[in-house]
Amino acid sequence: MIKEKIDNNVFIPMPVSIVGAICNGRENYMTVGWITRANGNPPMIAIGIGKTHLTWIGIIENGEFSVNFPTAKDLLKTDYIGIISGFKEDKSRLYTAHYGTLKKAPLIEECPLSLECKLAEQIDLPTHTLFVGEIIGAYADKKYIDKNNFNYEKAGAYLLTMMDNTYWSFGKKIGDAWKDGKDFK
Amino acid sequence: MIKEKIDNNVFIPMPVSIVGAICNGRENYMTVGWITRANGNPPMIAIGIGKTHLTWIGIIENGEFSVNFPTAKDLLKTDYIGIISGFKEDKSRLYTAHYGTLKKAPLIEECPLSLECKLAEQIDLPTHTLFVGEIIGAYADKKYIDKNNFNYEKAGAYLLTMMDNTYWSFGKKIGDAWKDGKDFK
Repeated sequence: MIKEKIDNNVFIPMPVSIVGAICNGRENYMTVGWITRANGNPPMIAIGIGKTHLTWIGIIENGEFSVNFPTAKDLLKTDYIGIISGFKEDKSRLYTAHYGTLKKAPLIEECPLSLECKLAEQIDLPTHTLFVGEIIGAYADKKYIDKNNFNYEKAGAYLLTMMDNTYWSFGKKIGDAWKDGKDFK
Repeated sequence: MIKEKIDNNVFIPMPVSIVGAICNGRENYMTVGWITRANGNPPMIAIGIGKTHLTWIGIIENGEFSVNFPTAKDLLKTDYIGIISGFKEDKSRLYTAHYGTLKKAPLIEECPLSLECKLAEQIDLPTHTLFVGEIIGAYADKKYIDKNNFNYEKAGAYLLTMMDNTYWSFGKKIGDAWKDGKDFK
């Protein structure tokens, strides 16, 4: 395969999530695609947040945040949350917040899966901060749980690619991980 | 929506990638799903690697690694790469390596997109290390580039969910990001 050198600013496929934090005394929400699991035990998650965002201040001030996975039925609202800044508009009115153990990690009632996270590490990078949070509690809509597993495809979770700025649904199951390759020679 | 408390060990949808590193003087490859963009400018990427892996040693020793996105046509081989440890088997024979600027970041010829990364930060977590790498060079198969954007769907990139350990293809385009929500009220 012949490959060409392209721009270094390459993005990878991302799960669409909404990060919640308390900012100026009220709930604020921001659409985030820079997210991954970071540690196995205890379970931790890492998110990359630009330093110009209100959410960035809220996470640093309180050391707590939430991660919520929306359904594609709410795509327009989720996209809106990613366009409008909390500095300009009160986004707390857009969702119903519920709380688990942490009182500064607003969980979104309307999202089928919500994680409450306690800040464990923060890594200062040039334009963004990588926040690593321990998952303290996870809450899911029962109807999307199959055999103790949250089913993202059934829950209508979706994906983002950049720079084409496209949202994608899940496709078909194409294989079983840690299984299909067992007999590969 | 009524949500139930579930196990904190929740995984999020992941793009299937292969991390390359030089280990014991030869190329080694490992399937990785814990990956995200981490910084905007310069472009950086973060990967979570368990401390028991040979790749973990290679990245720390050399300060360089690659990230490659396979096509689903190679699903069996990619799954195999994730099952078999480099401590037990020489995985260098499984791919053809090519190199960009960095001489310790083996890029995979067979993958339509490969990134060479220079280690910028490493965050020690209990079971994993989060490696943050600056993307020094990006190389893509020309036929998957549309308007300066690498088209993952066309390239046959795919996704992983856990604990159901399922590989998924991309589904349909369902929206335009930073656009569809503009007029949301």
